[in-house]
Amino acid sequence: MKIADVVKEQARKAKEASKVLAATETAQKNEALLLMARKLRENISEVAQANQDDCKEAQEKGISSNLLNRLKFDRAKIESRAAALEGIAALPDPVGDTDYCTRRPSGLEVKKMRVPIGVVGVIFEARPHVVPNVGALCLKAGNAAIMRGGSEALRSISIMGELWEKTLEESGIPTAAVYVISTSEREAVNTLITLDEYLDLLIPRGGIELIKLVKENGTVPIIKHFNGICHVYLDQSAPEGIATRVTHNSKLLMPEVCNAAETLLIHEKAARRLLPPVAEALVKDGVTLKGCPKAKEILGWMEDATEEDWSTEYLDLILSVKVVSSLEEAVDHINNYGSHHTDVIVTDDYNGAKKFSRGVDSGVVLVNASTMFNDGEQLGMGAEVGLSTDKLHARGPVGLRDLTSYKYVVEGSGQIM
Amino acid sequence: MKIADVVKEQARKAKEASKVLAATETAQKNEALLLMARKLRENISEVAQANQDDCKEAQEKGISSNLLNRLKFDRAKIESRAAALEGIAALPDPVGDTDYCTRRPSGLEVKKMRVPIGVVGVIFEARPHVVPNVGALCLKAGNAAIMRGGSEALRSISIMGELWEKTLEESGIPTAAVYVISTSEREAVNTLITLDEYLDLLIPRGGIELIKLVKENGTVPIIKHFNGICHVYLDQSAPEGIATRVTHNSKLLMPEVCNAAETLLIHEKAARRLLPPVAEALVKDGVTLKGCPKAKEILGWMEDATEEDWSTEYLDLILSVKVVSSLEEAVDHINNYGSHHTDVIVTDDYNGAKKFSRGVDSGVVLVNASTMFNDGEQLGMGAEVGLSTDKLHARGPVGLRDLTSYKYVVEGSGQIM
Repeated sequence: MKIADVVKEQARKAKEASKVLAATETAQKNEALLLMARKLRENISEVAQANQDDCKEAQEKGISSNLLNRLKFDRAKIESRAAALEGIAALPDPVGDTDYCTRRPSGLEVKKMRVPIGVVGVIFEARPHVVPNVGALCLKAGNAAIMRGGSEALRSISIMGELWEKTLEESGIPTAAVYVISTSEREAVNTLITLDEYLDLLIPRGGIELIKLVKENGTVPIIKHFNGICHVYLDQSAPEGIATRVTHNSKLLMPEVCNAAETLLIHEKAARRLLPPVAEALVKDGVTLKGCPKAKEILGWMEDATEEDWSTEYLDLILSVKVVSSLEEAVDHINNYGSHHTDVIVTDDYNGAKKFSRGVDSGVVLVNASTMFNDGEQLGMGAEVGLSTDKLHARGPVGLRDLTSYKYVVEGSGQIM
Repeated sequence: MKIADVVKEQARKAKEASKVLAATETAQKNEALLLMARKLRENISEVAQANQDDCKEAQEKGISSNLLNRLKFDRAKIESRAAALEGIAALPDPVGDTDYCTRRPSGLEVKKMRVPIGVVGVIFEARPHVVPNVGALCLKAGNAAIMRGGSEALRSISIMGELWEKTLEESGIPTAAVYVISTSEREAVNTLITLDEYLDLLIPRGGIELIKLVKENGTVPIIKHFNGICHVYLDQSAPEGIATRVTHNSKLLMPEVCNAAETLLIHEKAARRLLPPVAEALVKDGVTLKGCPKAKEILGWMEDATEEDWSTEYLDLILSVKVVSSLEEAVDHINNYGSHHTDVIVTDDYNGAKKFSRGVDSGVVLVNASTMFNDGEQLGMGAEVGLSTDKLHARGPVGLRDLTSYKYVVEGSGQIM
């Protein structure tokens, strides 16, 4: 069978499975999640080995270091996914939940009831942890999931796809409910993005080429997970300790992820005080700094930042630095050059914090905290399927509730208009 | 200037205006809404005359009667729009509202804050009331609106576009914030749907051709407002009075709108009791009935319903009738043949009502009430820009809150991960 036909047939089965899932009781879904957690732990050596094989081959092919970091899925990471599955099982089931209830003058009682979306497709790059996360969140929300990972992660994701299949079979849920496309053929992506007959939502996680492909050729509605040009802005009153800690953590905890900081903005009245200690902490851990002319007046050894730097997602140990003359200029810079993803202000000024939070048009705006907190678990919504850069349906971390739609249920006693 | 360039330039200006609107205070927005209401009343004769001219020309061109009903915008309808504008002014401003707040173990305080979407484009057919409704809802939600109506309504919508322009000018809001494209050239639509550089959301309200055009050639994210194949299901225990009243109202109040009933389903154990009185009430007011074989066993004079009838949106004085053997069969029929729009059960059975509400996968599911209540004002969310048939972002009536997005505002005290 041709790969296009395989994908199409699987999507058709996923649609059928989604109808069963929509009516599956919470207990049965939770049991499947807990079983998958057990299977991950029982097969931890095999999964880790598959991932090592993937990593080895990727290294031989000369993969970049940040992509390699994303690809790595060691025992600790696998264990954390098993724990995440248990966490998702413990979350309240959103399906059937009602979150807007009102009684109208007509006597009608109106409820807004959460329902599953249907079939969710996810296209992702290297990170294997997507397979347990997305599968679990979709399952809990009553959706079927169909996933297509990058070829470099093929062994890691295929073995977890098999674990899902066994889990579902043993749980009495149609196995098409969570499916991993186990092929590196490009044709699978081209097919998946046009299956609007079966897919209700597509989440493309990846670079500009994938987004372009999907926008130009796709027919399934999408929530984009695009690039992150994220900023840390040190306001005039920023305390040095927090400024250093938050900047360092935002750049260095995981430089390869989309919510890592790419540009540091500093108020001109704080630049002489803050830039030297912040720069020292970064440079000590291997970060290359690129400064604007005003920043270079303070630290002349920095490389020159060009206009292009302000809109570059390095995903690497590089940080651009710009001195701004006001909080307003910082907000304008972020809204113009950023990607509306994750931005931070470090400040001691109440009104400045409010102004920044209001003014910056990004999915997550933080005050005195690291960009790393743009994360579904950290913000209290369970795990997430990714960080949306869209404004429709879901923005920021896409959690369990964002994987549902709703219907209005209206109860009357014979009302007409 | 070519029409494509005019539309593009207007969209660019709308984007600029949307930035101003996002920061406009509630009081100023409300004043503009009240001023527009005043202007509608002051110019009621001129607007009504423009609409009469539109209707006259449309009739000369042989417009269908249901389209003519949609096009009609008389003094009573204009007055009701002025009142709706006042109602929207009285609604709470969603912008800046927070609807999810939590304090995390890390000490971070997380708020989900409502923000405007940006620029909203709306493409609609005959109904002129879209111009005050959409303009007002978008303005209140801090969005710029750019509208393109059907050529048959050109005079009616152009004059109201001018009233918006004067209103905004006098209110100190950029006039590009609410704009009506006043041309019947098709090129305007083709341009609008590809302006993803400026438009954040497009709402196509119309038939299958428009939806097809937008899906195949559009680049702006859409919320579809598609057709309505809506059902009234009379359950075994349905009381005759409610059954007759609700069916009659669902079919006859406005046969030309998308939430009018197109198919009547009746439980076989109630068919002999209910079909005769319900049919009599409908036929008396000019409805043609098309029945399945079982229905024709009861009322032999009905026309034959074909397989095609079950998925036909008549928008006219025609109703198809099918006898089903169970509530489950009714739910399956609705989910298979319907358009997931608006469906009703008439019943006295508590568990049946629950089962139907749960099982029918439609934007609005009603128990013992007319399909006509699928309406933003009636369901308590203010006016609406239309009735969404999509599952993402907004489903059912799209009200003020649905015209916003959100951002997470996260307040900390130096937290890192």
